Amino acid sequence: MSSPDPIIRSKQTEKNVNGISTEVVCTAFSNYIFVVLTQYRKIGTLISVTPESRSNDISTPSFSTKVLLGKDEPMTHVCAKNLATFVSQEAGNRPVLLGLALKDSSLDSVKQMKDIIRSCKVW
Amino acid sequence: MSSPDPIIRSKQTEKNVNGISTEVVCTAFSNYIFVVLTQYRKIGTLISVTPESRSNDISTPSFSTKVLLGKDEPMTHVCAKNLATFVSQEAGNRPVLLGLALKDSSLDSVKQMKDIIRSCKVW
Repeated sequence: MSSPDPIIRSKQTEKNVNGISTEVVCTAFSNYIFVVLTQYRKIGTLISVTPESRSNDISTPSFSTKVLLGKDEPMTHVCAKNLATFVSQEAGNRPVLLGLALKDSSLDSVKQMKDIIRSCKVW
Repeated sequence: MSSPDPIIRSKQTEKNVNGISTEVVCTAFSNYIFVVLTQYRKIGTLISVTPESRSNDISTPSFSTKVLLGKDEPMTHVCAKNLATFVSQEAGNRPVLLGLALKDSSLDSVKQMKDIIRSCKVW
């Protein structure tokens, strides 16, 4: 039985992105924002996106990405940073745990996906 | 805007386990069951619990555990197997991605936690 007002906030939605059904699940834990973006219903590649605390230059925040599960490809890191940076920044620099299973990771699609993540704001 | 009948099923609840508030979030992806069991609102240590396909002896299914994020301690593996094996078996041998942040991992508490996970059955 789910609580009507759960303490751990979670939101999800489904939208069409350039013809492909795209699902997003966002859950806010105290130490991580968990975001899954999937076009296969899979959790996909799991990446941690962590703000670098070393950076002293506030104008250019830096993020480190690490593939925890799945294929470690250069494009995955680029895509993960692109999708998760704004989440981390808006969530008070909390790291993001990101599940990515994309058929289409074109720049235009990724831009639309950011809006979908934004619509599931739990942070 | 959340869909009223989302395709990715997720359930969560909060219960008291031996005096400690314990939250569970279960989400069913096609290739993983994602379970978070937390007494700190953190995602905690992230462990993958995967059924071994090599085993030919159906009477003793075997599981491998891997810590993806957080402290890798022997007790974590024991606890993860204890909590996630039944989920994987009930979910047609799907692997389980388990987040564990426990103050109390006594055998009695873990037994109660299995019942809480069972109450959030999404598989």
